Amino acid sequence: MTTSEKAYEVVIDFIKKQISSGTLRLEDRLPPERELAEELGVSRNSVREALRVLDILGVVSSRQGAGNYVSSHFESSLVEMLSLMYLLQNIGYRDLTDFRYGLERQALTHAVGRATETQVREMEENIRAMEAAGEESLKAAYDKNIHYAIAKISGNVLINDTLQALSEVMDRYIVDVRGKILRRPGNQARLQDAHRRMVSAIRDGDLDSGLHALDDHFRCIYESLEE
Amino acid sequence: MTTSEKAYEVVIDFIKKQISSGTLRLEDRLPPERELAEELGVSRNSVREALRVLDILGVVSSRQGAGNYVSSHFESSLVEMLSLMYLLQNIGYRDLTDFRYGLERQALTHAVGRATETQVREMEENIRAMEAAGEESLKAAYDKNIHYAIAKISGNVLINDTLQALSEVMDRYIVDVRGKILRRPGNQARLQDAHRRMVSAIRDGDLDSGLHALDDHFRCIYESLEE
Repeated sequence: MTTSEKAYEVVIDFIKKQISSGTLRLEDRLPPERELAEELGVSRNSVREALRVLDILGVVSSRQGAGNYVSSHFESSLVEMLSLMYLLQNIGYRDLTDFRYGLERQALTHAVGRATETQVREMEENIRAMEAAGEESLKAAYDKNIHYAIAKISGNVLINDTLQALSEVMDRYIVDVRGKILRRPGNQARLQDAHRRMVSAIRDGDLDSGLHALDDHFRCIYESLEE
Repeated sequence: MTTSEKAYEVVIDFIKKQISSGTLRLEDRLPPERELAEELGVSRNSVREALRVLDILGVVSSRQGAGNYVSSHFESSLVEMLSLMYLLQNIGYRDLTDFRYGLERQALTHAVGRATETQVREMEENIRAMEAAGEESLKAAYDKNIHYAIAKISGNVLINDTLQALSEVMDRYIVDVRGKILRRPGNQARLQDAHRRMVSAIRDGDLDSGLHALDDHFRCIYESLEE
C-alpha cells in the first residue's frame, strides 16, 4: 500500500465484491477486523476506516461488542446524497416537473384501490387542512403531504425513495410553483379540485378518473411555467 | 466529543448544512482543514476522515496541494450504492419496470423531434446491430444503448442521471427481462418493432406514434413478468 487511501479502498472493494458475488448476504457477520487486515495486508486502522464509510453508505452496521454486519439502511444516506446532488445541480422547474410527473403518474396508478382506510382519511384531512389554511406556506405544506402520501401508498420503494430524496428541493419548488399557479384567478379552485379528485379516485379504485385528475393538476403547473 | 465517530459526523453535518443553505456552492473551496478543526472543536484527523467520506459520496474533491472543493461526482457512488441496495434489498423487477416506464415515458416525450441527425443515426445503428447480433448478451447491450440514448436526448438531467445511476442494476435486469420476453415466440420481432418505431418517431417528431411504441414495448415486459 502506498497511501492509506488505497488501503481503505482495498477493503471496501473486497467487501463489495463479496456482496455482489453473494458470498456475503444481508445480516451476515463480517470477518473480524484483525482477520480482514491480515488477509488484505492493510492496517487495522484502514479496515476501521473502510467499515465506517460502508456504515455511512448504509451497507454495514456495527453492533456494540458483536462485530460488523451486512446491513441495508440505505434510505437515509441515499436520500441525503440525492438531495445534495439535486441542490448542487440547480435543476430547472421544468425538468423537475417532468421528473415528478413521470414518477407520480406511476405512483398514482399503483396507489389506486390500494390505500387503507386510515391512509385515505389522512389524505382527506390534508385536503381539508389545505383548503382551510389561511397562509399560503401552510397550504403548500399540506399540498406536499398529499403527493408524498400517494408515493408511499404505491408501495414502490424506488419511486418513494427518489421522491423522498427530492424532498428538500421540492419544498422550495412547491411554494414557487403554487405562487405562479395562483396568479391566475380560478386556479386555486382548479388545483383543489384536482387534489380532491385524485384522492377520491384512489379511495374508489377508479384509475381513469385518477389519471385525469393528475393530468389536470400537472396541466396547471405546465401552464404556469410557460407564462 | 466523546467518540471519534461523533467528531467526523459533526464535520459532515456542518458541510452539508452549508451546501443546503447555499453558503457553499459547486466548485467552492472548503475552509482549510485546520480551520474546520478549530471551528468545530474536533481533531484534524476527524476532519480528514469526514472529507474522505464526502469524497466517496461524491460531494467533495481533493485537489493535490490546492485544498478541497465542493464537487458533484455523484454518479459512480450512486451507481455503486443503488447496485448494492438492489442486490441486498431484492427490489422486484415489477417495481423497477414501473420506475423505468415512468421516467422513459417522459424521456421519450421530450426526445421526440429533438435528436440531432448524428444521434438518430447512432440509435439506428444500435437497432441494426441489435437485430444482427447472434449472441443474446450482445443484443441486450445494444437494447440498453437505445434506451439510454433516448434519456440523454431528452435533455432532462434528473431523468438521465437517475437512469445512469441504475445502469449496473439495469445490466442484469435487461438480460433477465429479455430472456423472459423471448420465451414466447413472436416476441423477438415485437420487441424489435417497438424499438424501431420509437426511434423513427423521435426522428420524425411524431409523439403519438412514439408513445404507442413505448407502450407496446413495456406491455411486452409486463406480460412476461406476469407469466
